Amino acid sequence: MVEATWFIEGNDVMAGLYLGIDLGGTLIKFALLDDALIPKGHLELPTPVQKGPDEVIDMMIYGARKLLHQQGVSSSDLSGIGVASPGPIDFETGTVIAMPNIPGFNDIPLRARLADALGVETILENDANAAAMGEAFCGAGKNADILIMLTLGTGVGSGIIIDGKVLRGCHSAGAEIGHMIVEPNGEPCPCGQRGCLERYSSAAAVAQYARRLIENDGRQSTLSKILKKHGDIDASQVNDAQIAGDELAKEVWDRAMYFLAIGCINLARLFDPEVIILGGGMAKSGESLINPLRRYFNELHWTLTEPKTSLELSTLGSKAGVIGAAVIAWKTFGK
Amino acid sequence: MVEATWFIEGNDVMAGLYLGIDLGGTLIKFALLDDALIPKGHLELPTPVQKGPDEVIDMMIYGARKLLHQQGVSSSDLSGIGVASPGPIDFETGTVIAMPNIPGFNDIPLRARLADALGVETILENDANAAAMGEAFCGAGKNADILIMLTLGTGVGSGIIIDGKVLRGCHSAGAEIGHMIVEPNGEPCPCGQRGCLERYSSAAAVAQYARRLIENDGRQSTLSKILKKHGDIDASQVNDAQIAGDELAKEVWDRAMYFLAIGCINLARLFDPEVIILGGGMAKSGESLINPLRRYFNELHWTLTEPKTSLELSTLGSKAGVIGAAVIAWKTFGK
Repeated sequence: MVEATWFIEGNDVMAGLYLGIDLGGTLIKFALLDDALIPKGHLELPTPVQKGPDEVIDMMIYGARKLLHQQGVSSSDLSGIGVASPGPIDFETGTVIAMPNIPGFNDIPLRARLADALGVETILENDANAAAMGEAFCGAGKNADILIMLTLGTGVGSGIIIDGKVLRGCHSAGAEIGHMIVEPNGEPCPCGQRGCLERYSSAAAVAQYARRLIENDGRQSTLSKILKKHGDIDASQVNDAQIAGDELAKEVWDRAMYFLAIGCINLARLFDPEVIILGGGMAKSGESLINPLRRYFNELHWTLTEPKTSLELSTLGSKAGVIGAAVIAWKTFGK
Repeated sequence: MVEATWFIEGNDVMAGLYLGIDLGGTLIKFALLDDALIPKGHLELPTPVQKGPDEVIDMMIYGARKLLHQQGVSSSDLSGIGVASPGPIDFETGTVIAMPNIPGFNDIPLRARLADALGVETILENDANAAAMGEAFCGAGKNADILIMLTLGTGVGSGIIIDGKVLRGCHSAGAEIGHMIVEPNGEPCPCGQRGCLERYSSAAAVAQYARRLIENDGRQSTLSKILKKHGDIDASQVNDAQIAGDELAKEVWDRAMYFLAIGCINLARLFDPEVIILGGGMAKSGESLINPLRRYFNELHWTLTEPKTSLELSTLGSKAGVIGAAVIAWKTFGK
């Protein structure tokens, strides 16, 4: 009791810390932010996917304690924990309904498990929403009233932040920008629709389309050699090839940029955001992504006004989710 | 002073009235709501378009006073006035930048003009946003946390209400759902884009497409006779013809419903609204609109979940805007 009082009144550095945890299929990331949203420490641990949910949760608790210890603080210095998780979440009960990459991680009351173990109030959020919150408060979208983040990876993840709040929708099914239809009767999507944005502009879609043109249509490309050697190609190899002048790679990359621009124009028409931020694996291609995207965006955009929404690369990179998780804790449990 | 006090304390019916004014190119509408959003009176007057802005504003003031007089109240009983206006508005200064249908109505400080003349606090809003607010609080969208309204007329007007607030965007350019691209490289739109929703699913687009198929493509249709006789056709005639089994009319109507469903699916994916409300001239076709729209919406919708957003016809009809204007006054100036 006395010690707690001493911490709060006598040492501001110790009070008002927020822990973010980003639970991914490969890594669990941890980040500590203070009350001014200044990063105070960061840690990454492997996700023990094969060992099941209990071991995964134990690793989250272990990592949280380890980071706190490294920073010379304890869980009593935390004002809240935010956890970013992929897959569907029941926000009311704080339950992870399913984790696509962790077998058996179904209907796990993750919020209560962590809060009980660490003795700190905890909140769950979808990882794409968390990444958007991270960029909104600590990254490329600082001070934006409306910010949209697209994470270009296996799919197109997305988060929409309006006035500092995540747009979640009436049935927790909003902000699924990857499933905006950008080509009626277009590419079939596992979701059951056709022509979803993520069938054109995700890293996976880029690689798949290149492969299809080579394997099914017998098209010539420098990518054929990589495909033969490794049995697969990825989006960054397509980008390398298109930079080197490969015609097929240029066509594939161009298609992804074209439909991504259509998607961004639609977001500008509907939300009129300050900024649309591009993150995820494909954003590592930097100018190869942002330059043609901006070009198509400007070219296909209405002429009633100049484009006002800016398109920017993520500045937090792979840390957007974990920082955003801590930001959500700060928003929820801070004064 | 004594009288004012008496009104507020002694007679609740007199206190907390809100006046809505909907300034259209043909009619000016007036509606009075009480504090519980119960309609207390309604009036319509012709818009003196040809006489210029001053006469139009005088008619607004005259109509406001007339409706108050009819209801046995005065402007001192009003807690606020909301004005719905088409065209771009500078919300900060309360200025109508341009009125598409009223020549000379440019850069008019309408808010100040009405507030000064009537001695009541006044707020301006875009007419499509006002209609959405009307449906959200008094119509088909009661109690919806997120509601979207599409007004199918000359274009596709739209309003998006999130938690009782109009989504306006960072540069007052949001909620332009009519200019969502639903067909890449599709029909050219005067806005400068191609494939905008309103080029397919507005009343004007339906009529234009039927006419094009008849006149340019030489297609056979029962609509040819109407076109020859009157020099034009409209969407309701296309609807009549498709109900009667005309093949061309069926094709035209079907195309409008298909793209409208694509647009609604995209809205469901992005906003996950409780309800999307269809209003405007084309909504008068009732089941001819809502039934095929729902069919396509269900058919093209993802299969990850059942559709949760419902599609409904407007219940306020042509009064949505004026009632919404009064609702906005209630939201802004009410306790």
